[in-house]
Amino acid sequence: MAPTAASNHAGESGGENNKEWRFTAPTRGGAMAAVGDKMSIRAVRYKISASVDDRGPRPVLPLAHGDPSVFPEFRTAAEAEEAVADALRSGEFNCYPAGVGLPAARRAVADHLSRDLPYKLSSDDIFLTAGGTQAIEVTISVLAQPGTNILLPRPGYPNYEVRAAFNNLEVRHFDLIPEKGWEIDLDSVKSIADNNTTAIVIINPNNPCGNVYTHEHLSKVAEVARKLGILVIADEVYGNLVFGNSPFVPMGCFGHIVPVLTIGSLSKRWIVPGWRLGWVAICDPKKILQETKIATLITNFLNVSTDPATFIQGALPHILKNTKEEFFQRIIGLLTETSEICYREIKDIKCITCPHKPEGSMFVMVKLNLYLLEGIHDDVDFCCQLAKEESVILCPGSVLGMANWVRITFAIDSSSLLDGLERIKSFCQRHKKKNPLNVL
Amino acid sequence: MAPTAASNHAGESGGENNKEWRFTAPTRGGAMAAVGDKMSIRAVRYKISASVDDRGPRPVLPLAHGDPSVFPEFRTAAEAEEAVADALRSGEFNCYPAGVGLPAARRAVADHLSRDLPYKLSSDDIFLTAGGTQAIEVTISVLAQPGTNILLPRPGYPNYEVRAAFNNLEVRHFDLIPEKGWEIDLDSVKSIADNNTTAIVIINPNNPCGNVYTHEHLSKVAEVARKLGILVIADEVYGNLVFGNSPFVPMGCFGHIVPVLTIGSLSKRWIVPGWRLGWVAICDPKKILQETKIATLITNFLNVSTDPATFIQGALPHILKNTKEEFFQRIIGLLTETSEICYREIKDIKCITCPHKPEGSMFVMVKLNLYLLEGIHDDVDFCCQLAKEESVILCPGSVLGMANWVRITFAIDSSSLLDGLERIKSFCQRHKKKNPLNVL
Repeated sequence: MAPTAASNHAGESGGENNKEWRFTAPTRGGAMAAVGDKMSIRAVRYKISASVDDRGPRPVLPLAHGDPSVFPEFRTAAEAEEAVADALRSGEFNCYPAGVGLPAARRAVADHLSRDLPYKLSSDDIFLTAGGTQAIEVTISVLAQPGTNILLPRPGYPNYEVRAAFNNLEVRHFDLIPEKGWEIDLDSVKSIADNNTTAIVIINPNNPCGNVYTHEHLSKVAEVARKLGILVIADEVYGNLVFGNSPFVPMGCFGHIVPVLTIGSLSKRWIVPGWRLGWVAICDPKKILQETKIATLITNFLNVSTDPATFIQGALPHILKNTKEEFFQRIIGLLTETSEICYREIKDIKCITCPHKPEGSMFVMVKLNLYLLEGIHDDVDFCCQLAKEESVILCPGSVLGMANWVRITFAIDSSSLLDGLERIKSFCQRHKKKNPLNVL
Repeated sequence: MAPTAASNHAGESGGENNKEWRFTAPTRGGAMAAVGDKMSIRAVRYKISASVDDRGPRPVLPLAHGDPSVFPEFRTAAEAEEAVADALRSGEFNCYPAGVGLPAARRAVADHLSRDLPYKLSSDDIFLTAGGTQAIEVTISVLAQPGTNILLPRPGYPNYEVRAAFNNLEVRHFDLIPEKGWEIDLDSVKSIADNNTTAIVIINPNNPCGNVYTHEHLSKVAEVARKLGILVIADEVYGNLVFGNSPFVPMGCFGHIVPVLTIGSLSKRWIVPGWRLGWVAICDPKKILQETKIATLITNFLNVSTDPATFIQGALPHILKNTKEEFFQRIIGLLTETSEICYREIKDIKCITCPHKPEGSMFVMVKLNLYLLEGIHDDVDFCCQLAKEESVILCPGSVLGMANWVRITFAIDSSSLLDGLERIKSFCQRHKKKNPLNVL
């Protein structure tokens, strides 16, 4: 591939007018080109944010992302903040961290997760990562081999797609079924898997749909994965954030049926995404991932990658041990309230439909009834016009693999949420088709 | 590529005795296989550490790595610690950070670096990274395109090689010349570059050699790079850590001749590698990297990667502004003293030779005079036997691209350093060849 010439800038200080610079962004090939292709997602988000009228009198309401940390009532636990401050002030954790995490921190995560599992995890099963983002990166990277493929949910979390593209790993999508509480369509899983499939990703509690999988459904997922001979990547960054009838069941409970790589993080349950502390846990009592060397690959990858800050690792045992139950109950209480507000108010907005009351995570997916709306072409258009007219930011479903749906977060203070939903309602009423039956 | 079968573990709970698991570590192909190949480096390090006799009466002296943060006299500045604690306690920085860094933090780095440049950097020129490690990752990744190559120094810093392997980017090595104070062999640079070369990496102050490049030499590097049409990646993570006759000259001073990507970090100058806060700065007043879209690629890459912790970013403006000159002077004073101890004591050890007195960074490279030593085959063997007999850990040169040399750090408290060098001396005397002339 011949390098493209950039324009010549050396002219003014030398005589090399025809000189070329040999570096340039890839037009095709290479990992960055793949990432660039996926950048349309970010372009869409940027387009929506840029649609906001800066001169508008009302505050912008960010209902697109799951990060309520800026709202005082969602402030993290004082014990957690204290633990990090203490570790910092001790001066003992300014050093480089070990490649896969401080031993005491790994042990603390192992003990923490083991409380909800039918077997014990050891320190060696835990790999600390710089947030869930790096946990996804390492998990996808170690599975990427030429010719293999991975199964991802639709709708899903786009970082999986981006990281797969970066590693040249083929992605195949299975559906989540809105009418069945966003259960995984196991028939579609079976139909898209083949001999080169290595893993399936499940997200529970679910982002973007807000559902929580039952023990029975997860058990079926495990059996299907086992039959296919593939491992399960269980994205549980919203673990324990449940407020409906289904309790949170860690996928690791089925580790004796199928090997599970569990992705977790402090980010959501402790409301500290900025701390960048996550983990990959190998939930595999039969040690299949050790035999197939996946555990070694994870170690190799993390040994040459960046790490979570050492003093936050140093604080981790105290955070996990000392955070009071009242903190978790308070956050669950807030999310219960806001999720109910969200579901109730959405029912009252005719042009969007919510197929399933949220019972976990921080999100709900709603369907746009475009046939009821005038002059709105699709979900991106809906979000852009809404941002412009109402200063409310939503996440269009096409970014998550499901066009003409939108994702709304309810992890925000209740008055802002009510305000935001009221604005969406006004918007929809203003754009209501006068005579919708004419188009049917 | 057909997946390899792992052994069957499903038998005990079902009838699928012939079942295969379809995931396994790559035997060839894929990025992880490339990283695995480079893992020999870590295997060597592990072998050396494992050689230490745990029953030995004396403390292990780590003279391999540049991380003195555990020694009280190298404790970071109180102002820096205070700034991070304040940012944490404010509760304002628990949120997700922006993909390329908080605006105020980017501006602070731009202002900080601009003080030593003949032009001003803007916030947009700065990309915050999770330590120097992620800065190397993003820089190498955005340059990796099929068919291109990059020039790396020998000896050098192995993370560049690992990251290049991961991205399937061809590496070509140029030499640093010990007899010329570790200057870059510019003839070898010219001879290995071709039309597919995109960049050259220079490390200044130098790791592993401890030299500091003069303004004149850097100017020549810039001219050569410009003639070749390649950009310069200037690894300045040891920037300002100089204590000889050469002042530290940022490569960005030559940004009007050739575009420079400068890699920097808090890790070394502030002695806080565990804080994982680094940056890539585009030093390119002619905006060539904007035109060739390299700046866009960096943004794209970081937008889908992990970040430095938000509250450490939040503290950055205060750290850069408020750290007192006395702190820097104290650290420079310590390193001046220990580098002189190191050079003086090494002169007294016959079986190793130091070609150049260290004047920057935290390291010195010394040559093993193997013909003076009995029963020691190479640098790895030297380091293993030394670890076993004297509990002193050194870094073998073969890990850095230069066999039969070793790297010693002097960034350690002076009594430990003296103790370590004394042990090396005893070791060499004990292994001295009785009649070295016989082998000549």
